[in-house]
Amino acid sequence: MKIAVVGAGAVGRSVVDLASEYGHEVVAVADSSSAVVADGVDGRNVGVDADAVVARKAERGIVGDDDPADALAADYDALVEATPTTLGDAEPGFSHVRTALERDRHAVLANKGPVAERFGDLRALVDDSDGEIRFEATVGGAIPAVSTVEDIEPGHVTAVRGVLNGTANFILTRMAAEGLDYEHVLAEAQDLGVAEADPSFDVDGTDAALKCVILANVLSFGAADNPADAREFTLDDADVEGIRDVPGSALRLAAEDGRTVRLIGEATGETVRVAPRLVPENGTLAVSGTQNIVQIETTHAGRLNISGRGAGGPETASAVLGDVGRLE
Amino acid sequence: MKIAVVGAGAVGRSVVDLASEYGHEVVAVADSSSAVVADGVDGRNVGVDADAVVARKAERGIVGDDDPADALAADYDALVEATPTTLGDAEPGFSHVRTALERDRHAVLANKGPVAERFGDLRALVDDSDGEIRFEATVGGAIPAVSTVEDIEPGHVTAVRGVLNGTANFILTRMAAEGLDYEHVLAEAQDLGVAEADPSFDVDGTDAALKCVILANVLSFGAADNPADAREFTLDDADVEGIRDVPGSALRLAAEDGRTVRLIGEATGETVRVAPRLVPENGTLAVSGTQNIVQIETTHAGRLNISGRGAGGPETASAVLGDVGRLE
Repeated sequence: MKIAVVGAGAVGRSVVDLASEYGHEVVAVADSSSAVVADGVDGRNVGVDADAVVARKAERGIVGDDDPADALAADYDALVEATPTTLGDAEPGFSHVRTALERDRHAVLANKGPVAERFGDLRALVDDSDGEIRFEATVGGAIPAVSTVEDIEPGHVTAVRGVLNGTANFILTRMAAEGLDYEHVLAEAQDLGVAEADPSFDVDGTDAALKCVILANVLSFGAADNPADAREFTLDDADVEGIRDVPGSALRLAAEDGRTVRLIGEATGETVRVAPRLVPENGTLAVSGTQNIVQIETTHAGRLNISGRGAGGPETASAVLGDVGRLE
Repeated sequence: MKIAVVGAGAVGRSVVDLASEYGHEVVAVADSSSAVVADGVDGRNVGVDADAVVARKAERGIVGDDDPADALAADYDALVEATPTTLGDAEPGFSHVRTALERDRHAVLANKGPVAERFGDLRALVDDSDGEIRFEATVGGAIPAVSTVEDIEPGHVTAVRGVLNGTANFILTRMAAEGLDYEHVLAEAQDLGVAEADPSFDVDGTDAALKCVILANVLSFGAADNPADAREFTLDDADVEGIRDVPGSALRLAAEDGRTVRLIGEATGETVRVAPRLVPENGTLAVSGTQNIVQIETTHAGRLNISGRGAGGPETASAVLGDVGRLE
């Protein structure tokens, strides 16, 4: 497949870097202010030089000398949308995906915004397009959460829950292991680069909630006989509580009872909830550090647990490139 | 899809029972001595009555008044092969699959024999057919081991390992929990119906080895640029050691060190090995009772762990019906 990559952060750069290993050709790359579009030779697109893109981004802060609009207009089969997640109108990611679908091309999203905040608008665009959308990378990094739910079929899944934010999980894991308070561990996580300078998105539960909203949309639209009857979820529909107020003493009390605390998100086709919850200390949900886990409750096959790396450039890029492969 | 189900044990009966929920129509069912083929009405096949099939099997020991050969000749899109696993020539399962492929129909296997013992022969039949084969149900029951490896792409998977036999795992779990010896726990497992009267297939590691052989074939053929270069694995290529000789004292010693013993199978594109191994007592591989777990080692996305129910009629049937859905 010929792919265009919009967004040149860790995920976008890893997609560019790994695409050829997955048998795909990168024909355009854009960040917010620049782009590089492969030159056509004898009517055939020869692909961009992945190493050169990554080097230019590191050295000059641009990916190339073309205009971002040129990348959106390039001759790709699938657009990879890997710009930062934005809330509300989910722009500019939403417009990038719209451009691809209106051109009857596919779109693969690593950006949670459009899938969490404007799922109904996306579905409407897909209905009018020969292109499809896929978004495995938006939930749980390398964990195949969305495609496993799709394979089981949403009508046979009653709930999906799990640990979906590595930063919050790292902090809770360290608080329990070291007996430290939230503020101490947050500072450590920031030093290690596990937490952002402004950690709100992770520690307030927003990131986990967006992932659960996406899963709720998959369950709701996937199980509906008629998409018009499906309920659309956005962040406003989620009941969200973060980990800032979890005292170190709560973790010590939990440990005395063989338990610990995890930030658990849960989606059904009707509700989305994210909150710190007590879980067995050695239980399946008590993954450590930045690991993520997804539990899928099925009607006929019991509970399925999938754990792995929930973030990271190559990990998330592998989910993106898996999606590209499914579109072939 | 119109499906014919050959084999009326727990898995076959569950496939018949659940097919309509997955949007498929059962047009024929056969066991070893009888069959029922749906009547055509105005050129349209109206499907067999699932409840009646299950009732006849329970009351009269037959599924219907037709001949098994009639089921193989019925007008199905996909044949579900759910007869008992046999070794060596993998008959009669192999011939059932051959019949479907030679008629340019798909085949979905719950029977491990043909995929583990005659993978090369199956590939050759698929090459000459418009039909495809799928066999998710042969490895780990409800766990999507094969399709997840296929989605990641075998060339990006370095190894697959895990706990793949629920009977052996139940015995090891109980030996560790109760401090009992193998013979005591085996008798208990037989009383509970978790172990067969002749438990050899499970406790000697044969069943786990067949699953690992299947995974090795998926890795080997999936990663080869040219299938002719792929190495074909059979049970003879597996290095297998069972759990009969694991003394209770070994589990007690392991526990003192925070470890326990699990029957671990591992497949790469080059080796297959099954043996009892020490694992951390609260670690990911130490699943309890009849649970199974699969660990997939990837080149770019780290390690993925998938655990769930490794056996059972509805659980395995859901894997079969998921495969049928992928063929649409």
